[in-house]
Amino acid sequence: MTDSLITAPLKRLTTRAPGLRLSTDPGDMEHYGRDWTRRWTPAPLAVALPSSVEEVQMIMRWANEEGVAVVPSGGRTGLSGGAVAANGELVLSLERMNRVLDFNAVDRTLTVQAGIPLEAVHNAAREHGLAYPVDFGARGSCSIGGNIATNAGGIRVIRYGNTREWIAGLAVVTGKGDLLELNRGLIKNSSGYDLRQLMIGSEGTLGIVVEATLRLTDPPPPTNVMLLALPSFEMLMKVFAAFRERLGLEAFEFFTDRALHHVLAHGAQKPFDEVHPYYVVTEFAVGDEQLEAAAMAAFEHCLEQGLVSDGVISQSDAQAAQLWRLREGITESLARWRPYKNDVSVRISAMPAFLAQTQALLGREYPQFDVVWFGHIGDGNLHINVLKPEGMDDGEFVGHCEQVTKLLAQALERHGGSISAEHGIGLVKKPYLLGTRSEAEVEVMRGIRRVLDPNGVLNPGKLFDP
Amino acid sequence: MTDSLITAPLKRLTTRAPGLRLSTDPGDMEHYGRDWTRRWTPAPLAVALPSSVEEVQMIMRWANEEGVAVVPSGGRTGLSGGAVAANGELVLSLERMNRVLDFNAVDRTLTVQAGIPLEAVHNAAREHGLAYPVDFGARGSCSIGGNIATNAGGIRVIRYGNTREWIAGLAVVTGKGDLLELNRGLIKNSSGYDLRQLMIGSEGTLGIVVEATLRLTDPPPPTNVMLLALPSFEMLMKVFAAFRERLGLEAFEFFTDRALHHVLAHGAQKPFDEVHPYYVVTEFAVGDEQLEAAAMAAFEHCLEQGLVSDGVISQSDAQAAQLWRLREGITESLARWRPYKNDVSVRISAMPAFLAQTQALLGREYPQFDVVWFGHIGDGNLHINVLKPEGMDDGEFVGHCEQVTKLLAQALERHGGSISAEHGIGLVKKPYLLGTRSEAEVEVMRGIRRVLDPNGVLNPGKLFDP
Repeated sequence: MTDSLITAPLKRLTTRAPGLRLSTDPGDMEHYGRDWTRRWTPAPLAVALPSSVEEVQMIMRWANEEGVAVVPSGGRTGLSGGAVAANGELVLSLERMNRVLDFNAVDRTLTVQAGIPLEAVHNAAREHGLAYPVDFGARGSCSIGGNIATNAGGIRVIRYGNTREWIAGLAVVTGKGDLLELNRGLIKNSSGYDLRQLMIGSEGTLGIVVEATLRLTDPPPPTNVMLLALPSFEMLMKVFAAFRERLGLEAFEFFTDRALHHVLAHGAQKPFDEVHPYYVVTEFAVGDEQLEAAAMAAFEHCLEQGLVSDGVISQSDAQAAQLWRLREGITESLARWRPYKNDVSVRISAMPAFLAQTQALLGREYPQFDVVWFGHIGDGNLHINVLKPEGMDDGEFVGHCEQVTKLLAQALERHGGSISAEHGIGLVKKPYLLGTRSEAEVEVMRGIRRVLDPNGVLNPGKLFDP
Repeated sequence: MTDSLITAPLKRLTTRAPGLRLSTDPGDMEHYGRDWTRRWTPAPLAVALPSSVEEVQMIMRWANEEGVAVVPSGGRTGLSGGAVAANGELVLSLERMNRVLDFNAVDRTLTVQAGIPLEAVHNAAREHGLAYPVDFGARGSCSIGGNIATNAGGIRVIRYGNTREWIAGLAVVTGKGDLLELNRGLIKNSSGYDLRQLMIGSEGTLGIVVEATLRLTDPPPPTNVMLLALPSFEMLMKVFAAFRERLGLEAFEFFTDRALHHVLAHGAQKPFDEVHPYYVVTEFAVGDEQLEAAAMAAFEHCLEQGLVSDGVISQSDAQAAQLWRLREGITESLARWRPYKNDVSVRISAMPAFLAQTQALLGREYPQFDVVWFGHIGDGNLHINVLKPEGMDDGEFVGHCEQVTKLLAQALERHGGSISAEHGIGLVKKPYLLGTRSEAEVEVMRGIRRVLDPNGVLNPGKLFDP
């Protein structure tokens, strides 16, 4: 970094934490100043890359003294603008704190620094003959700290739950710079408020997760993957019920023909000769004759009832991966259109009515747009991606989409749903928070934020305004 | 209630909530003013038995205006003094709010009022072909609201987790009297702080749980129950490992010969002719030949290695119940001695060292006392009950036990354990909270309490002082 760019507060930070890696390189500022939303222009003060908990604490104490805002930063794969630094904040990247600290075979836990990528956690668990079962497409880039900050869900929630279920302990540096060691790996601990749970999903507004103790589990059972083609949208919940009743589902994912279109254009292999309007990828435990028979029975039941019109089942790991690519490749295949994203959830029982209303709403409001839907039907979670038409102005596009988000938020309110199932609120969904949470709840959240970050230096402007 | 006992604040409560059932009957005051600890003399102002959420809100608004403390009250089976009213508080009993409000087959949820007993929840789930799997001995008396307030664990945590895992939504009246409807049954909801999680385990100091939406699950698989006799204490963790490795454990509970002695004296049937120093009751899934063979293999491995000296396996549900009684009957069989209770936890991997140190500590400090141990080994949770010698003064007895608790708390601190695994802190463990939670954590808890209960009217003096 060049000396001329070091402002007075940064100089004092350097004095306080002499070993701290700090950058004001324009490339770094852009790289670390944004997430996958690409809607805000990065404009941080600088990027700090601490290598220890002590350095993180030093930064937070400095930030409180100087009144400098700090944006905690993991893999920046977020889709809600939670890790964007567009207002002169210091980006605090956990990237260099990416080590496995401990594995305990008896407790079946893995303790890691927060900056470790999810995929490295998967690999470390596997090396010990166990599994960390939370999984999603961004596994190679996202960090476990970011997963915790949004209580990340993904493609196996139906079987393993969200990130929350797998956190046995957290070390967190609060907005004040205090280090809290929360729950320390205990299974049973009824000794006051479970602040660990409060930190999970708080989007870096209460504290910075610096270390986590993760529960591991047995490796997944042998599974098969099935791709189903559905003749119409009304069949979806019935197909889900037929499969859930007969099988131990590991995943049950839905996508539309428009989604398939983009994945195929991105190089995936066509699964059926004919075109169908809706598809499901489902994965389920197999390994004995009874289970294999149950899978076939589920499929045959759906075929007989006219709920599905075609299907394929994986005969090898390679085929399973090919079928999964049709679902997992969607986000990447859409990225170049900078889609406007909604990530909403309702209770499973509310899905049929909500889906029908949403379909009508989208058809009415987006006639000219390419709208790609997919989602985790078994968790009541739907992703709606609207692609920007070629040549349309960015501002006009987002403005139009936000109008529709308002209508969607109203539908969610009627169904008791959430405007953010797994992406978080960040900057993107902040205007809609009150559709999901009451005024009284937001007031409590504000109060809690003031307790942990009285000077308001931690990720200000995200989630809700002070 | 007699008019002469109605104080001015109570008169104003009656005016505000004309339909509210209120009692100052001395029998009611004693009954509702205490929990199972029996260490404090009940001395409430009165007992309120609201029948609706609105009445609970009215009481809380009144309490804020009048500066009257309120003690939320469920089944009062608590063991930490969390529901004791010994200082002129109003007891707010949820006893009349005990109905099932909704069952949803698609979501697999049961929505109940907080005062419903756990056993009624079990029955309601069973009627719908499903199960609510949290379970413990007090099931007939304890309420689901109290279970939530302490994040109750019990005998099936090893398989199903604590109460926390089963709460899909909560309706809570805060210390200010606001009604918060938290999470509303959603599986995925990343829209700000999960206040539901904060309420779970908060011992009635942040809000009063008035309704809960509980997740249900498949009925448990067919199981067998095995009782094992252990020649010595060092074998315990090895037996646990041998069984955990081979079987799907539903429970793995440990108790000592002194515990068995009391249960047998209380009418249970003697399982072995010989006396053994330690016992384990374990329950595991069976139902196919492979699993039955695995159970026998686990037992035979332990026998060959000298880890167990005898064992019996249930051949019928009646026999299974008989074996379970040996463990589940302990608390009741000890009750007449008013035991001093410790309920501590460490990580499973810390158990061997902690158990050895605790055994030495208890042998040294309690040579003249009858000390009964049991616990949930698979969760790292140990219960230590010290029986009061006949004729010893209450104060002297508790004073001596508290000296030992201090030593135990120090051992727990060294092992990163908790002074309360599942009973809560309440009044009993309040002096030891700082051994388990740091000053900074307690300071955060204090701040959060002030946000939700700014006038400090909700269960004051419990958990920690303001």
